[in-house]
Amino acid sequence: MENQKKRLIIIGAGFAGINLAKNLHHEDLEIVLVDRHNYHLFQPLLYQVATAALSPADIAHPVRRIFRKQKNVNVALGRIERVDLEQKKIYGGDTSVDYDYLALCVGATHSYFGKEEKWAPVAPGLKTLDDATLIRRKVLLAFEEAELELDEQSRRAKLTFVVVGGGPTGVELAGALREIAAKYIQEDFRNIDTSTSRVILLEGGDRLLQGFSEKSSQRAKQDLEKMGVEVRLNSLVTDMDEHGVWIAEERLLAQNVLWAAGVAAPPILSTLGVETDKCGRIKVEPDLSVPGHPEVFVLGDAAHIVDPKTHELVPGLAPAAIQMGKYGAKVLRAELSGDKDARAKVKPFVYTDKGIMATIGVNRAVAETGPFKFSGTLAWLAWSLIHIFFLIGFRNRVFVMAGWIYDYIARTREARLITGQFSLKVRKFRKAPKQA
Amino acid sequence: MENQKKRLIIIGAGFAGINLAKNLHHEDLEIVLVDRHNYHLFQPLLYQVATAALSPADIAHPVRRIFRKQKNVNVALGRIERVDLEQKKIYGGDTSVDYDYLALCVGATHSYFGKEEKWAPVAPGLKTLDDATLIRRKVLLAFEEAELELDEQSRRAKLTFVVVGGGPTGVELAGALREIAAKYIQEDFRNIDTSTSRVILLEGGDRLLQGFSEKSSQRAKQDLEKMGVEVRLNSLVTDMDEHGVWIAEERLLAQNVLWAAGVAAPPILSTLGVETDKCGRIKVEPDLSVPGHPEVFVLGDAAHIVDPKTHELVPGLAPAAIQMGKYGAKVLRAELSGDKDARAKVKPFVYTDKGIMATIGVNRAVAETGPFKFSGTLAWLAWSLIHIFFLIGFRNRVFVMAGWIYDYIARTREARLITGQFSLKVRKFRKAPKQA
Repeated sequence: MENQKKRLIIIGAGFAGINLAKNLHHEDLEIVLVDRHNYHLFQPLLYQVATAALSPADIAHPVRRIFRKQKNVNVALGRIERVDLEQKKIYGGDTSVDYDYLALCVGATHSYFGKEEKWAPVAPGLKTLDDATLIRRKVLLAFEEAELELDEQSRRAKLTFVVVGGGPTGVELAGALREIAAKYIQEDFRNIDTSTSRVILLEGGDRLLQGFSEKSSQRAKQDLEKMGVEVRLNSLVTDMDEHGVWIAEERLLAQNVLWAAGVAAPPILSTLGVETDKCGRIKVEPDLSVPGHPEVFVLGDAAHIVDPKTHELVPGLAPAAIQMGKYGAKVLRAELSGDKDARAKVKPFVYTDKGIMATIGVNRAVAETGPFKFSGTLAWLAWSLIHIFFLIGFRNRVFVMAGWIYDYIARTREARLITGQFSLKVRKFRKAPKQA
Repeated sequence: MENQKKRLIIIGAGFAGINLAKNLHHEDLEIVLVDRHNYHLFQPLLYQVATAALSPADIAHPVRRIFRKQKNVNVALGRIERVDLEQKKIYGGDTSVDYDYLALCVGATHSYFGKEEKWAPVAPGLKTLDDATLIRRKVLLAFEEAELELDEQSRRAKLTFVVVGGGPTGVELAGALREIAAKYIQEDFRNIDTSTSRVILLEGGDRLLQGFSEKSSQRAKQDLEKMGVEVRLNSLVTDMDEHGVWIAEERLLAQNVLWAAGVAAPPILSTLGVETDKCGRIKVEPDLSVPGHPEVFVLGDAAHIVDPKTHELVPGLAPAAIQMGKYGAKVLRAELSGDKDARAKVKPFVYTDKGIMATIGVNRAVAETGPFKFSGTLAWLAWSLIHIFFLIGFRNRVFVMAGWIYDYIARTREARLITGQFSLKVRKFRKAPKQA
């Protein structure tokens, strides 16, 4: 009997994968949910770990815990490298597993526009918890080194932070970095004034937050500039090394360059041998299945799908991934219903845009929903509440909210830990500290 | 004027170093507090990070934050490798600094009895946050691998945990590991029954918790055994490799061996060229200064001092380190008072033993204070409250307490994150999962 059960393999425990599995709760199906991490990550708050506002455990929830009661789900920790559509097998390391149905919910990674080798080591991106703790370490170390640095130019470089990419992540990172430097750690240092730190946000296009309205883009730029962030539009990074970046002929010296630009699909998608867009996303059917393979679905950021209503590409956002996960479950439920026509009756996927928001700093955010555009404290509160609400796990909700409230009142960043291996890049130990 | 100020360098921001600096609040002194980490670590709860009950940020507090208002303290992040007593200089990397007074508060590290090279990579000890997250990763990975392992013997080895050393840390680790396996994650797995995991606590001596009374040792052993821990006394590990340990001729197969045994003083102490005990601790004068160098103090675990009252060695415990830090400040205040006889008048250091306690599991602990010995729920509550109370930072107190209460009610371990680089040691992906 066990062996008659159909097996659905879900690769990736992000928003799409989690919601797909949850919505197949009652199906007589063997679901195997594979991820390379043992936790579901709430990516929208990842930048807060990178900027020491939250701890990794606050925004990550063990996948096994999420499905402990849903007995048709088997969670497996593993790296899947290849899919064989014809044999209906997935491969990872020395492992291969057969599937009846497959859902690729592998999300997106960042692209350095073909410069990976040289740029990736210099400018870490922000997609995983380890990325976030790495960035946290690099940023916090820069202040520590600056405190002990005697050479003026080196100190300036340590206190200069360049963020590449003016999308939501770039805007949120730049704002958070500026807040740390100007508000939260200034009193803690004796030899440097951290509020003199430069945070430079570079955007290749002519405005921040593409995808938002002109108005919101303007507001975000104004807010960032009020906070002291240097926003530079139409500024394409042409090269970089460990000392900083080049914008055409101009040289910007900065010890920390953070990457919040290009998006690319994970390599596994290329192993399917089907048509992808230039970012490597798979061009799926209206029901989010792979052309010619109705048993294989691509859900979330990895899917390239034009919305039939708006005729625009469905954006790579958490809400879209959640909706795709639920939609995939709907299609599979129809498929498994026994009624041969049921699946054909399921309407094509339509993205319901409930709105978009980006936070810039405390009491500063922009939000748009339908015709409504708002900003400032109201948008910031909405942003906070909505993010708390969508966090998985009661404990995470309580702890994240408590952490924010505490930091807001105490004006500090408590998750300020430099973990992992590091070596200090310090010229000299400062002998006579500046008088307070 | 600045340059007339005397400089006190404190190496180590543990309990001794923090308390020394705090109690020199009003002195017209330039205090430089150097540590290789940017946080003060509450070591008594480190095993809870290793066993996924708490997050690193819960038990660590930024040193700069602690002293942000105490302007005579300069915090510096750095590794000090060598002390030159004659030149009154400390050296670290390409850095050297002069001191007028020096306090070595460098704590203790673990000793593998001369087997470092072979044993250290196999059996990580528990002294730093990175140790704790490494152990957490290894332990959590073992369950994940066992879930997918088809070979019975390998699966048993993955589900076998050996803890070497029956002191407080060993007892706490063993108890916490057994609780995770038996209580907190059992429901989360489909192919294995985690409650069948073996936790083996090896103690070379004839009882656990040396330093506690016979009665408490007995009770700890009984409690651990009730929980399902295999306690083995008079069991000396003679060798180990990545497959397990040897006890004389007996072989114990275990993927995870945790080290909670030997104590050693950090290498920097040997650079002083003064008399040490066999563990490398410095034999200090009754005022905790280095013989022949009244301007240099050794405080905390690194000091070898026999209590004049009890004629016993002052134990390497947090309370002793705190008391030594405060005492050192008293001596320095006398020294700086201008009154030449003041320092001579300071009485020798006496350790006030307020009691000792060790927790074994939920509702299980042993505590002794003076003639009173108690155990069970009462001792466990006392343990919890006292540890919360001594945590530095209001936020940490609130979050640790909240975390404990949540986990206690929800019967889970939420800080269950496998972070950092890892590769799975899995034979095969399990095809047909056991039926729930």
